[in-house]
Amino acid sequence: MSALGIDYGGTHTKLLLVDEGGAVLSRETVPTGTLAELGASVRRFLETASVAAQSFAVTVAGTLDPSTGVVRRSANLPWLDGVAPAEVLSELLGIPGVAVQDGEAGAIAEARFGAGRGSDEVFVIVLGTGIAGAHVLSGSVQRGAHGGAGEVGHVPVADNGVTCSCGQVGCLETAIGGQQVGLRWRDRGAENQDASAQDVVAAAASGDEAAVAVLDDAARALGRAILNVSALVDPALIVVGGGVSRSPEWTVEPAVAYARENATFHVVPELRLASLGVWAGAHGAAAVAADTFVGARAQAHRP
Amino acid sequence: MSALGIDYGGTHTKLLLVDEGGAVLSRETVPTGTLAELGASVRRFLETASVAAQSFAVTVAGTLDPSTGVVRRSANLPWLDGVAPAEVLSELLGIPGVAVQDGEAGAIAEARFGAGRGSDEVFVIVLGTGIAGAHVLSGSVQRGAHGGAGEVGHVPVADNGVTCSCGQVGCLETAIGGQQVGLRWRDRGAENQDASAQDVVAAAASGDEAAVAVLDDAARALGRAILNVSALVDPALIVVGGGVSRSPEWTVEPAVAYARENATFHVVPELRLASLGVWAGAHGAAAVAADTFVGARAQAHRP
Repeated sequence: MSALGIDYGGTHTKLLLVDEGGAVLSRETVPTGTLAELGASVRRFLETASVAAQSFAVTVAGTLDPSTGVVRRSANLPWLDGVAPAEVLSELLGIPGVAVQDGEAGAIAEARFGAGRGSDEVFVIVLGTGIAGAHVLSGSVQRGAHGGAGEVGHVPVADNGVTCSCGQVGCLETAIGGQQVGLRWRDRGAENQDASAQDVVAAAASGDEAAVAVLDDAARALGRAILNVSALVDPALIVVGGGVSRSPEWTVEPAVAYARENATFHVVPELRLASLGVWAGAHGAAAVAADTFVGARAQAHRP
Repeated sequence: MSALGIDYGGTHTKLLLVDEGGAVLSRETVPTGTLAELGASVRRFLETASVAAQSFAVTVAGTLDPSTGVVRRSANLPWLDGVAPAEVLSELLGIPGVAVQDGEAGAIAEARFGAGRGSDEVFVIVLGTGIAGAHVLSGSVQRGAHGGAGEVGHVPVADNGVTCSCGQVGCLETAIGGQQVGLRWRDRGAENQDASAQDVVAAAASGDEAAVAVLDDAARALGRAILNVSALVDPALIVVGGGVSRSPEWTVEPAVAYARENATFHVVPELRLASLGVWAGAHGAAAVAADTFVGARAQAHRP
């Protein structure tokens, strides 16, 4: 029972074939193209693999209607808007497939095979330009009743008075979102008008007081968010990934220290850095394919 | 397959026998006594019932180790400290039993049979002296990894600077906990030194400005808590019970209005008032008994 994970990214697409135990049989990175081009790339990839894929899942970087598999909006792959990519690919490949949001695929992979391996109740936080969160319980993302659960980036935990892209004031994202860290540095007088989070970390490391203050605020906000997640969800483990976590000594580590110092009844869980890197989405997609179609095939085989 | 729910309260104990469909066969309220006295009461109750109970669950008003069933601490029934009440009662009654926290039993009952009936993803909030919360997914409470999930009373959402019983500042409980509402009224100059939430509501209804301000603060804090729950858990429905919800026009209704006005990406769920009243705990306990022992009995009957 082999399954194919397709991580359909903005510039490159990752193809990963796994066996039923999740072991990698083959993998390849191809340039991103239209669905017809992707179908051709996958056919070539599968011809060179020793085992046929029996199902696939394809990630979508955008919003997806989970009941129909239709993409509502994909900023980077606009040809997907209003299209059900798994349906199109399934026709091209002759095997059943399903679409999954890219963040969900990555969270499933980190929770099951990456830093969360061995724990049944993992909360994954990705500190990128935006902040994504997902509560992965027994390997499955808890989506909530309207697909909105896990939005840890949009819980107000910062004292900065900044209006978030979502419209609320003081969301976690305003303090620690990749671009936001640069903007907060500018708010404190920095001349660099489009600093990245890495620029702010570099400035802090060379003693820039404004940069240090910005990262202190970011870490305190993340610490408060961790306490909120502990109070409401109480995960066994928090896994943190994304660009801003690449300098953990300035962000993740002081955030955990803040959470531990300010915990009262909370059990602050262990926090680990994400470990799968750029293949996380493809691993998660392959797992979703296996989850989705093993059951369906078993039913189809019933007498 | 009949199941007995025992709601072991501070002064009275409720006994409820249900059939396998959950229909009530018999019920009775007895004065609360020791476990030996409770065992005798239950025996008398079952003798008058037409059907034998095949299992039971007993509620614990206190903290419970879910893995052993041992009570850590019960403020109102101190003879339970360090005791496994279900084990003792099981010996006395000759049927298998399990202990369940009283708040968890009430939340299960409201979600399955009360105001949450028909919805698969319910968040229950009880506004009492303390604030209890529980995320009930497909009829089961999501306890989290350390039994701490759902603590909506201890998420900081109030601007009052008040230190909570838990040690944090500005928890929901400091704004809307039963006694806390009275204390906030005193903070604003009221002469009544031990006002209840109902006293504050009565004063607000007769135009006391300080009381109106206290209830405004309480409703705003509850509205923010609802937004936090929507962002992290995203339930389909919120059920609110407890004494402070008895004047919903001053608390729950303005809180929902605040949440809807301030929602951005959130889907603010429908909010309903709890409907089962004082029998909720016994209903929930009976359901837990049925859940726990139907599986065990089925295994025992395997050849």
